[in-house]
Amino acid sequence: MSESLRVTIWNEFRHERSNPAVAAIYPEGIHAALAAPLRAAGHAVRTATLDEPEHGLSAEALAATDVLLWWGHKAHDAVQDEVAARVQARVLDGMGLVALHSAHFSKPFKRLMGTSCDLKWRVADERERLWVVAPGHPIAAGLPERIELEREEMYGEPFDVPPPEELVLVSWFQGGEVFRSGCCWRRDRGRIFYFRPGHETYPSYHHPLIRRVVLNAVRWAAPVPGAAPVHGRCEPLEPIG
Amino acid sequence: MSESLRVTIWNEFRHERSNPAVAAIYPEGIHAALAAPLRAAGHAVRTATLDEPEHGLSAEALAATDVLLWWGHKAHDAVQDEVAARVQARVLDGMGLVALHSAHFSKPFKRLMGTSCDLKWRVADERERLWVVAPGHPIAAGLPERIELEREEMYGEPFDVPPPEELVLVSWFQGGEVFRSGCCWRRDRGRIFYFRPGHETYPSYHHPLIRRVVLNAVRWAAPVPGAAPVHGRCEPLEPIG
Amino acid sequence: MSESLRVTIWNEFRHERSNPAVAAIYPEGIHAALAAPLRAAGHAVRTATLDEPEHGLSAEALAATDVLLWWGHKAHDAVQDEVAARVQARVLDGMGLVALHSAHFSKPFKRLMGTSCDLKWRVADERERLWVVAPGHPIAAGLPERIELEREEMYGEPFDVPPPEELVLVSWFQGGEVFRSGCCWRRDRGRIFYFRPGHETYPSYHHPLIRRVVLNAVRWAAPVPGAAPVHGRCEPLEPIG
Amino acid sequence: MSESLRVTIWNEFRHERSNPAVAAIYPEGIHAALAAPLRAAGHAVRTATLDEPEHGLSAEALAATDVLLWWGHKAHDAVQDEVAARVQARVLDGMGLVALHSAHFSKPFKRLMGTSCDLKWRVADERERLWVVAPGHPIAAGLPERIELEREEMYGEPFDVPPPEELVLVSWFQGGEVFRSGCCWRRDRGRIFYFRPGHETYPSYHHPLIRRVVLNAVRWAAPVPGAAPVHGRCEPLEPIG
Repeated sequence: MSESLRVTIWNEFRHERSNPAVAAIYPEGIHAALAAPLRAAGHAVRTATLDEPEHGLSAEALAATDVLLWWGHKAHDAVQDEVAARVQARVLDGMGLVALHSAHFSKPFKRLMGTSCDLKWRVADERERLWVVAPGHPIAAGLPERIELEREEMYGEPFDVPPPEELVLVSWFQGGEVFRSGCCWRRDRGRIFYFRPGHETYPSYHHPLIRRVVLNAVRWAAPVPGAAPVHGRCEPLEPIG
Repeated sequence: MSESLRVTIWNEFRHERSNPAVAAIYPEGIHAALAAPLRAAGHAVRTATLDEPEHGLSAEALAATDVLLWWGHKAHDAVQDEVAARVQARVLDGMGLVALHSAHFSKPFKRLMGTSCDLKWRVADERERLWVVAPGHPIAAGLPERIELEREEMYGEPFDVPPPEELVLVSWFQGGEVFRSGCCWRRDRGRIFYFRPGHETYPSYHHPLIRRVVLNAVRWAAPVPGAAPVHGRCEPLEPIG
Repeated sequence: MSESLRVTIWNEFRHERSNPAVAAIYPEGIHAALAAPLRAAGHAVRTATLDEPEHGLSAEALAATDVLLWWGHKAHDAVQDEVAARVQARVLDGMGLVALHSAHFSKPFKRLMGTSCDLKWRVADERERLWVVAPGHPIAAGLPERIELEREEMYGEPFDVPPPEELVLVSWFQGGEVFRSGCCWRRDRGRIFYFRPGHETYPSYHHPLIRRVVLNAVRWAAPVPGAAPVHGRCEPLEPIG
Repeated sequence: MSESLRVTIWNEFRHERSNPAVAAIYPEGIHAALAAPLRAAGHAVRTATLDEPEHGLSAEALAATDVLLWWGHKAHDAVQDEVAARVQARVLDGMGLVALHSAHFSKPFKRLMGTSCDLKWRVADERERLWVVAPGHPIAAGLPERIELEREEMYGEPFDVPPPEELVLVSWFQGGEVFRSGCCWRRDRGRIFYFRPGHETYPSYHHPLIRRVVLNAVRWAAPVPGAAPVHGRCEPLEPIG
């Protein structure tokens, strides 16, 4: 499993520059924290952020991306519709998408889901415990039965997404809620994984097991070789009439 | 099962007024042909067409609709984005949607699917045979093992939609293709059924078994009573810390 | 939705006769507690218990059953293999099955699932909170967003069953676990619902919302009219060669 | 993707020894034909047949198997129940299973599915065309949009298996039927793929694209590293009461 993938990590990169508490946890940005273990695993990682031209997601950049990670929170609306549509199209074309935490409300994710992607939430320094409900799933490879995060934001059900085609993780929260925290979907040739943890004021992306899930998800979401589907008008293969 | 539902049948209603061959089959429009058996089954049916104000789909009209049928083909682009978004939102709010034939390319359906919804096609007067692959599914109630249509348009795979959550019918075509012809999805509180047959130059909507599927689908897609989900910020239910 | 179904409630009926604490909660047996609201809803309910001849599940009895509820716990092995196979076959033939609580380890359920059906458990008088993750699902009809049970047995993940085709409820437990508590599967023409609550030392089946779920599940699992599938050798429908 | 897996190919190996027409196609047995391309791809392949002690499937042999292929047809009943149960248990424990053609009626497959696994069939030298309905799925890697087999046995719907969790291929048959020909399921930590072609009187396992599907399926079904799930009684992780 030593295949090297071309990974682009997209980060809004606003909290880290305006909130010292976030900067203390992610001094070089959430994207940098996510990049390190992926690079260590041999992937070719580049990063892209909101304030770059075309948000760092030109057609060329996306064409050269096997798997895209997306972290965004307070500036979803600042993402240009044209770029969101481009990401959506590239996912349908085979690029994997790993949507992280508040990316549930990002434009590309919402376009791909077709639903509101709404949920409950609360920031109250509470414990989250992610249970593996699909042992044997590639995204659970090497995980223990659960991951404990001492402090995280709460996300609660109902999570308004299409029913996950594969449900890998379910979260327990100290305050009394549950959440489908690791969800898989296929859209055309692309694979999408939503992974819940990662509020900017908590160090979740430094946690080795959270890193392991992200690493597994990147491998799982990798494009499968094959030609684009043939659509449109076509001639019969068998005699008619 | 005598529950009366409020059904709105939406039809583009252009072919019937411009193509005598179509008018001969559906003299009062495809919507009228679809309405008859639904009315006979006790449902409260109204129709709406593209050229009405707001395409006949005002917020009030949709609010008073339990299940919406949609037939469109050559004028998908003429549907206002605002109305398409309104239909999408109403489906998420619980209204059933039965997307018929070329409605695979309609704006509301594409928004709900998040994919291209593309496929192969051919109009060659060929035989279609729809096989029930989920006997026991409510949409297959009372059907024999297959439905034969002597002449229909061909739709071929790959059909670029999210994997159906329930696959009820698969079509065989004389020219050599197959197609997932009866597909179910849930999106938030709404249910969506895609049903393939119904090219405007063939009398498929007069076929008693096709009518039976449409009738079953309307019942299946009926809203389930219940309050709208609660989302947003919430207080803990258990003590934290 | 006033259709009257023929419901058989099967109960092991051992705890109630040997444990006064259980008898105090279910003086006439768990089956009687389950029967009352189903009768009140207009269903034709009969009960059957382990110690009857053929466990009360003769071929005739099953043939006259639309939906079977099953509660068993400490005497799963006392169920004859022949009767378990008969129940399995009748489910494939269209009878609904609602497997309650410790029925996860019952012979008919295990045969239908093909897996170990194992899980974690603990009896510690703890709080369970069942969250609706599929609002709009018929089994969630009329439910609030969650059901609170002050004291229940804990069941924890991983629950070794085939991935539910529809996941309706997820439980939060005070002691830190989660569980997929309301799970749907289709097997041939039959529908199966697993519903977690119902440890014999707690009064869960007297709770109005638990009763509502059982009632909804019975309606959802009702057989769909239609002939048995045709299998075996068959002649071609089209010319070959 | 050069990981070498330990593959066991199980073959009934009766037709090849009694029917010269089959022996002409598979002179060393179907297992030998299946083994060649898997060995060429770097896998460690052993074969096992019905008439060996324990059918060649001792506990040790299974423990040392990552993925098991199964071909059987006329002697399903000769497989010992104990061995069938051992295969089922090993799949739940993480071993992949690729069930080929008439293996739909094999004991291990039926135990894992929980259904009759029945279908329609006909041997009439007719054309089969397998359409990829999930481009982008790992089992479709490198495939064109369809595979054409000039002569095969027909299998027709309804195929009485649990709804496939991923449907990769759908067959068109010249005689008028369709079939879900490439089906994926997960059971505990094991993955199961059913692949339809392979009647013993046709050379399907010599076809390069059929070989490609088998190769892809073996990779897809490979075990995922991780400990066995913890089940049974457990202590609370959080304070109760």
